[in-house]
Amino acid sequence: MKAHTEYLLFHTKKRRELVHLTPTLEEILAKAGIAEGFMLVSAMHITAGVFVNDDEPGLHEDIWKWLEHLAPFKEGYAHHRTGEDNGDAHLKSMLVHHEVIVPVTNGRLDLGTWQRVFYAEFDGQRDKRVIVKTLGE
Amino acid sequence: MKAHTEYLLFHTKKRRELVHLTPTLEEILAKAGIAEGFMLVSAMHITAGVFVNDDEPGLHEDIWKWLEHLAPFKEGYAHHRTGEDNGDAHLKSMLVHHEVIVPVTNGRLDLGTWQRVFYAEFDGQRDKRVIVKTLGE
Amino acid sequence: MKAHTEYLLFHTKKRRELVHLTPTLEEILAKAGIAEGFMLVSAMHITAGVFVNDDEPGLHEDIWKWLEHLAPFKEGYAHHRTGEDNGDAHLKSMLVHHEVIVPVTNGRLDLGTWQRVFYAEFDGQRDKRVIVKTLGE
Repeated sequence: MKAHTEYLLFHTKKRRELVHLTPTLEEILAKAGIAEGFMLVSAMHITAGVFVNDDEPGLHEDIWKWLEHLAPFKEGYAHHRTGEDNGDAHLKSMLVHHEVIVPVTNGRLDLGTWQRVFYAEFDGQRDKRVIVKTLGE
Repeated sequence: MKAHTEYLLFHTKKRRELVHLTPTLEEILAKAGIAEGFMLVSAMHITAGVFVNDDEPGLHEDIWKWLEHLAPFKEGYAHHRTGEDNGDAHLKSMLVHHEVIVPVTNGRLDLGTWQRVFYAEFDGQRDKRVIVKTLGE
Repeated sequence: MKAHTEYLLFHTKKRRELVHLTPTLEEILAKAGIAEGFMLVSAMHITAGVFVNDDEPGLHEDIWKWLEHLAPFKEGYAHHRTGEDNGDAHLKSMLVHHEVIVPVTNGRLDLGTWQRVFYAEFDGQRDKRVIVKTLGE
């Protein structure tokens, strides 16, 4: 069994941003030299997420509007008693989920035709990390 | 370490449909010959999901009503500028999540008494795939 | 490859409750003797969840309020025709998701600074189980 671990660093310019990870993940897999396995892609923060969907700008607009509707940025979260103003980012992270497992087959990310992996930043403009850990052989 | 990979094909009669996968997954596990490991069950599309819950028709009614409430089929999604009309299906996929990991112990799917695995089709009536990848020994 | 499996038992005093699992998971990892791998933490019930977020009481208040808003406890779920009154608990479980994968690196849970693992009970006051399965070497 082989294990390969890398950490990606993000420091987004905007507070809320999507970053397309698939090309980076393909490079990591090439380095890992794993033909059959699972690649875990997991945000190491509680105000960010990782998800798989389409790389289509219109859809990304819809996703942001939808997340804002279901987990709005607003005053009044109990979490804000700590001095933070990012209660919405925690809830958005729960909704989107913070991790995905990408299957690896024959040395490639075994994704469907339109599946792409995204990092979703909900409280950026500061250093954030994603762990990419591949297990297999 | 062993890896076993299969692809399930779906072509649902209705646009939105749940397909119970547990018996199929048990057959796959028997073929895989893996006693201890993880089975990834992951939709290869961005308008479908995979989830674990109860095989109870009333609950399934509730799930559809709830998904429709939180991610409604409607006009006006920005994604529809591409000519598609399935913006809701992408959001439903994000809400339900597109994959689960089922633990494998002593050669069996290690699910709780009422846990069953479902494929959730949100934009069917066409060919769709699910990858079932088991890793272990 | 090594596999280590444990089952945690919960019997919460309240119907809805969060249980912080991280210290227990660290103890399990020490027993597992796995340095590199994945730890699956998965509820074995369809009315419970497992998630990663902040151990901050205000945030937990926000999470409960938010879950109640998006998947309310109420009469009228079709699932209640079975005699149950926990339709909301099934939907909350789908929203939160029932499992997480925690990466294991150098013999430690490879979590971010503020990431903690929680069991979310949505229909407690009875025996419930969580499987903790670690795979690696």
